[in-house]
Amino acid sequence: MEKKSMLEAFKETKYQTAGHGKREVGVLLEAFKDIDPHEESDMYGNGHFISAFQDKMAGYLGKESAVFFPSGTMAQQIALRLWCDEKGAKRVAYHPLCHLEIHEEDGLKELHGIETILLGDEHRLITYEDVAGMSEGVSCLLLELPQREIGGQLPDYETLEAISEYCRDQGIALHLDGARLFEILPYYQKTAEEICSLFDSVYVSFYKGIGGIAGAILAGSKEFTEKSRVWKRRHGGDLISLYPYIVPADYYFDLRVGKMEQYYREAIELAAMYNACHSVLTLPQVPVSNMFHVHITAPKEKLEPIFLDVYEKTGIGLTGYLKEVNGNRCSYEISIGDAYGDVPKDELRKAFEILDQGIRALNGTAV
Amino acid sequence: MEKKSMLEAFKETKYQTAGHGKREVGVLLEAFKDIDPHEESDMYGNGHFISAFQDKMAGYLGKESAVFFPSGTMAQQIALRLWCDEKGAKRVAYHPLCHLEIHEEDGLKELHGIETILLGDEHRLITYEDVAGMSEGVSCLLLELPQREIGGQLPDYETLEAISEYCRDQGIALHLDGARLFEILPYYQKTAEEICSLFDSVYVSFYKGIGGIAGAILAGSKEFTEKSRVWKRRHGGDLISLYPYIVPADYYFDLRVGKMEQYYREAIELAAMYNACHSVLTLPQVPVSNMFHVHITAPKEKLEPIFLDVYEKTGIGLTGYLKEVNGNRCSYEISIGDAYGDVPKDELRKAFEILDQGIRALNGTAV
Repeated sequence: MEKKSMLEAFKETKYQTAGHGKREVGVLLEAFKDIDPHEESDMYGNGHFISAFQDKMAGYLGKESAVFFPSGTMAQQIALRLWCDEKGAKRVAYHPLCHLEIHEEDGLKELHGIETILLGDEHRLITYEDVAGMSEGVSCLLLELPQREIGGQLPDYETLEAISEYCRDQGIALHLDGARLFEILPYYQKTAEEICSLFDSVYVSFYKGIGGIAGAILAGSKEFTEKSRVWKRRHGGDLISLYPYIVPADYYFDLRVGKMEQYYREAIELAAMYNACHSVLTLPQVPVSNMFHVHITAPKEKLEPIFLDVYEKTGIGLTGYLKEVNGNRCSYEISIGDAYGDVPKDELRKAFEILDQGIRALNGTAV
Repeated sequence: MEKKSMLEAFKETKYQTAGHGKREVGVLLEAFKDIDPHEESDMYGNGHFISAFQDKMAGYLGKESAVFFPSGTMAQQIALRLWCDEKGAKRVAYHPLCHLEIHEEDGLKELHGIETILLGDEHRLITYEDVAGMSEGVSCLLLELPQREIGGQLPDYETLEAISEYCRDQGIALHLDGARLFEILPYYQKTAEEICSLFDSVYVSFYKGIGGIAGAILAGSKEFTEKSRVWKRRHGGDLISLYPYIVPADYYFDLRVGKMEQYYREAIELAAMYNACHSVLTLPQVPVSNMFHVHITAPKEKLEPIFLDVYEKTGIGLTGYLKEVNGNRCSYEISIGDAYGDVPKDELRKAFEILDQGIRALNGTAV
């Protein structure tokens, strides 16, 4: 019998604990189902679709102005470049596992010649002390909320306020990587506007918790966003038409921004089931958004058959991959979306029983 | 009575001599009408949609490999950057009215630090002598076929071959700005592959003659395109999903690539009607693709009412704008697409009679 890959087996499961369902063409078509086919396209940053959505997001985020970008990679490099030009020094600070540092092929350095200072330690959040202890000459500090690469952790709100005040006092621009901003509002019990008021500029994404196709908003002062449009053209992001991303961003924003509390509660529920298993820990232990990381002390080759067994016996997919660390641990990321609500809870408990028993058996024998 | 703007009046006409019809949402929906909603999205440059289209275009262009980009601006800056890195000098040469020089907010210089040498004169094509007379140390020469900003002119094929041979001999990379490559094949009576064989790399666009939503292909050697993927990520163009542009690019390519001969013949026909009018010249006089520029010796304020009169009496829209030069001349661009075929020829002749009479009357009085 040929061995099924983890991803194949996951895709074939009837229910999945993470995400909003498959990323397929239907996601686009659903967003357009009530759009008049005679509605005019946006043209190079102008037109109804793009203006209306930019205005809506500026209002939601409590900023003067907002610009739609095809990607967060582009939006954030440009934000940091603008702050560097404004402050007169090509130097920014961010977390060692910042998206710009590890996922963008060094675009910030290669295209903008910006030097980066890695604040704090990659295993924990940036603290107030890290910020206050920064060397001089930093133009902009980027904070990512939640800090995705360490499971989506958040500082307490007072720390955010203190960092914001410090940066204002020191003339350091504070930029929010809000790729998952919508997802953290229930934990902080704040509006997006309240959180954004601590920052000079903010980027948000529409294909994480919102579940759109692609695209990002960069918001800030009118002066800031006007300059960002020039760089958007330089980067090749001022596409003749962006409505194929804007319409889904708008549609799924309306559909899901009110569900973030539910996703957050479900993440807490699911993380508790993981933590009840032998040799399993989630990070954070109690999620503060819709996301968390699962860490299991067992090698990938031993764990995979257990997951495949779970999928076959329950029809519930927990993850499509296992990332092995040091040959003896595995981890993966969970982001709760609409799919979790469809999972039958009895079957889910059964899935975790099988998982727990499988890991216990491993520990009794091979681990 | 309130005066209607030229663009408003143009949009309200029943028939239009240029383009493929309105840029509206229906263009997207038509391209997806036969796509299975369960078809999986592409993910960060991988997946069926993007791979299949890239392979198809590589084959069509006769290159080893091709990469889909959200924009030509991004694709071409990256192409030139790669050639500069390959050759070891950040210096490229192109026409004074090259897209990168006048429409991209100097992205090439600001993001890549590349120096540009403007070859020849802005009112004419680059010649073999211009190329052979270039100073040393140029890494890459970009040729745009046709040269859009001067009406879409083309060098003869022998000149192209001679320039290509010269560049190969001198170790200068030759890049094709083929934004309108499909459109020039009928004039040269060559395949895309034959023309591209003269160039080391080539960019083509899918929303000019093809009439898609947005997007571009960059093609060349496997080594070249693999490196371009890294820069695509750096630019923020490696979107999680590009299928909303790829599916229409593919659909309209199949629909229209075979119609370029027809558009070309129609452009010749329409240009002749313009040239028969008083004080009107087209550039080129006889088009060599689906495009040409119209130049009329009369000021905008005098011309606009004549065009509005034409639109009202015939229902045929000739242009949505008049670009005034030196206060006494106007010009605009025509690109023939599907819309021209719907224009009733009797009415079109009538439109040109009204235009001609209007301009003659002007010349007898105010000009």
